[in-house]
Amino acid sequence: MNLDIYKNLNRGIESTYINLNPIQRGGVLTAEARKAALEFADGYSVCDFCFESRVDLVQNPPVRNLTADIAEFLNMDDVRFTAGCRHAKWAAMHMVTEPGETLVLDSLAHYTSYLAAEANQLKVVEVPHSGYPEFIIDPEGYAEKFEEVERNTGSLPAMALLTHVDYRYGNVADAAAVGKICKEYGVPFLLNTAYSSGIMPIDGKKLGVDFLCASGHKSWAASSPMGILATTFEWNQQVFDKSTIRGDWSGRGFTKKEVALFGCSPVFGVPVMTLMASFPSVVERVKHWDEEVENARYLATQLERIEGFHQMGVKPTEHTLVAFESLPLFEAAAKTKKRGYFLYHELKKRKIIGIQPGMSKSFKLNTFGLSRKQIEYVADAFIEIARKYKIPVEDET
Amino acid sequence: MNLDIYKNLNRGIESTYINLNPIQRGGVLTAEARKAALEFADGYSVCDFCFESRVDLVQNPPVRNLTADIAEFLNMDDVRFTAGCRHAKWAAMHMVTEPGETLVLDSLAHYTSYLAAEANQLKVVEVPHSGYPEFIIDPEGYAEKFEEVERNTGSLPAMALLTHVDYRYGNVADAAAVGKICKEYGVPFLLNTAYSSGIMPIDGKKLGVDFLCASGHKSWAASSPMGILATTFEWNQQVFDKSTIRGDWSGRGFTKKEVALFGCSPVFGVPVMTLMASFPSVVERVKHWDEEVENARYLATQLERIEGFHQMGVKPTEHTLVAFESLPLFEAAAKTKKRGYFLYHELKKRKIIGIQPGMSKSFKLNTFGLSRKQIEYVADAFIEIARKYKIPVEDET
Repeated sequence: MNLDIYKNLNRGIESTYINLNPIQRGGVLTAEARKAALEFADGYSVCDFCFESRVDLVQNPPVRNLTADIAEFLNMDDVRFTAGCRHAKWAAMHMVTEPGETLVLDSLAHYTSYLAAEANQLKVVEVPHSGYPEFIIDPEGYAEKFEEVERNTGSLPAMALLTHVDYRYGNVADAAAVGKICKEYGVPFLLNTAYSSGIMPIDGKKLGVDFLCASGHKSWAASSPMGILATTFEWNQQVFDKSTIRGDWSGRGFTKKEVALFGCSPVFGVPVMTLMASFPSVVERVKHWDEEVENARYLATQLERIEGFHQMGVKPTEHTLVAFESLPLFEAAAKTKKRGYFLYHELKKRKIIGIQPGMSKSFKLNTFGLSRKQIEYVADAFIEIARKYKIPVEDET
Repeated sequence: MNLDIYKNLNRGIESTYINLNPIQRGGVLTAEARKAALEFADGYSVCDFCFESRVDLVQNPPVRNLTADIAEFLNMDDVRFTAGCRHAKWAAMHMVTEPGETLVLDSLAHYTSYLAAEANQLKVVEVPHSGYPEFIIDPEGYAEKFEEVERNTGSLPAMALLTHVDYRYGNVADAAAVGKICKEYGVPFLLNTAYSSGIMPIDGKKLGVDFLCASGHKSWAASSPMGILATTFEWNQQVFDKSTIRGDWSGRGFTKKEVALFGCSPVFGVPVMTLMASFPSVVERVKHWDEEVENARYLATQLERIEGFHQMGVKPTEHTLVAFESLPLFEAAAKTKKRGYFLYHELKKRKIIGIQPGMSKSFKLNTFGLSRKQIEYVADAFIEIARKYKIPVEDET
């Protein structure tokens, strides 16, 4: 065992680098969160003054307040923290569905949505997207699939899941329309806001959401793993149902503990405290979402000046996560020694990181939280690389 | 919404305080881990160079190595990281048992063991303990319960769980004897090492363990939530079984992702990196377990000089988590204004924290990682408090 490899650990990335990683932009900590991470780094740091045996009820630090404030912020009624958005999805499905039932979900859903269904022994039926180049989810697809499931199984699906913003194209789905259809059919509606709440304004009631899951480390400037499961008063008793198991010999019971959270969600340190420390900034930053989208659109326009570069998904983009196809880059890559890795290396030379190495036919990036100046720098870098590899670039209009 | 309460968050505890909190001693970060926490605080910091779509396979930082080294350290064959020990327990049960089957567990088990069973719809049958004052789990109780379950249900239990060190008295159960019985009956054996691995030497093979779960934030000097699930080559395919779900329209599948880990365990930031940074110290510290136990025994002997103070559990203690009954303290408390809280306040005045406020009839503490000098200071503080409240104290022998 060579223990030296675990010494002096570092990311190998300087903090001055511009990181475009699509999953990372919304999870970059605020300065306040960085301080909190250090202060609460010890394992059970939030439990110093726990008198109520559940982390969401701790009053010092003010986790109980945070729970209520996040419910208000999302316009939902009740909130719990989970070890990541994936656990929130599993929990909602676990408490609301039965094995063998059907989940209808969009075909752009994250793998953790499928896996949560799988761990709950649910069948999945997908709502199609419109395919290349827009990949749009038509809300009407939910009504069609509900009826198809009812025809085939004799009952409506146990739950519908919509990915509010998908991780592939950054399309913003029409959640309100899906919410309306779910209400009409009486199908419980789970909205995955991993790429929306925390960076853009969300009103759960307006969207007709029964369960809303969110990702702290993706979009609330929190350390991983941090998830949020929000629900309504109609559902909170069922979803946050308490333990009824009893020791047959001891008679022990745990009636304050919540089953789907494995009793008490184990985020009682850095995850919840970074979420808390960042929360004031998060409340503020969602008000500036329009500016963020403007920045992303600016970058898309600049990159499309490069021949063969096309923004995929809905145009102009409605989100800061943007995907591009870039075939000329792929052709150029074939001629280089580093093959598909050359874009990664060319960008890194320019102190830009976060584009998946090996990608060049297409790639995606996220501009959230970058200044216009940084985005201009990124645009210039891409254009410079294109020119270096003899890919034509249109003049600015 | 008053966002000011989330500003300048701090634990309200100075780092010079002596913290006796029984759940916290083994989770205090090493200096190396504190540095790593800051370096990897951003949400997905471990995913900068992820090419294999699972955190346990990431090579830079060396998570893949860590996985293998921890397997070797525990003398198990295969390891995964989980969002806390509670998820590891749920995962093992989920992949090995069927709803309606029976779990046999010790009656001192942590609530998360019961809750993991509940979330998997298992019945629980408890192995009794010997009661006051020792609370010993007799390994033979497992054989008796296996036969009882077989008589009552027609088949053996689907799994047996033993809490290696219980959280109430710090008794070290005879895991090897339970392992032997499990092997004889052919019942899969899950050992919960939340209070043992990471602070004392563990040899999974010698103990006859099929599944071993551990808590990073409890005993491996890691930030929460960090769990470990280790298993053998006999079981690893089943426990870490991969996803087979497929999109019915898209055909999408996720064949590298593992079902019971919700695809990829969401510890890809501070949790796994603090575990990694502390690992060299953890490998070293378990070699000094005897000295740790000596320190705890010393403190127990000192506290028992106070009239009516009795160490509970096995004597002399075999662990650093030690419980005491302290009736005279309770009687003294009744006469003070702060009632049960007076012990907490008296200790805090002396810069000692971690004794649950409100406790005084009995209390527990953990001396792990404290120097002999600190322990002497703690002993003196208790004796001083006893004398202040006119509780007789024996002279030192």
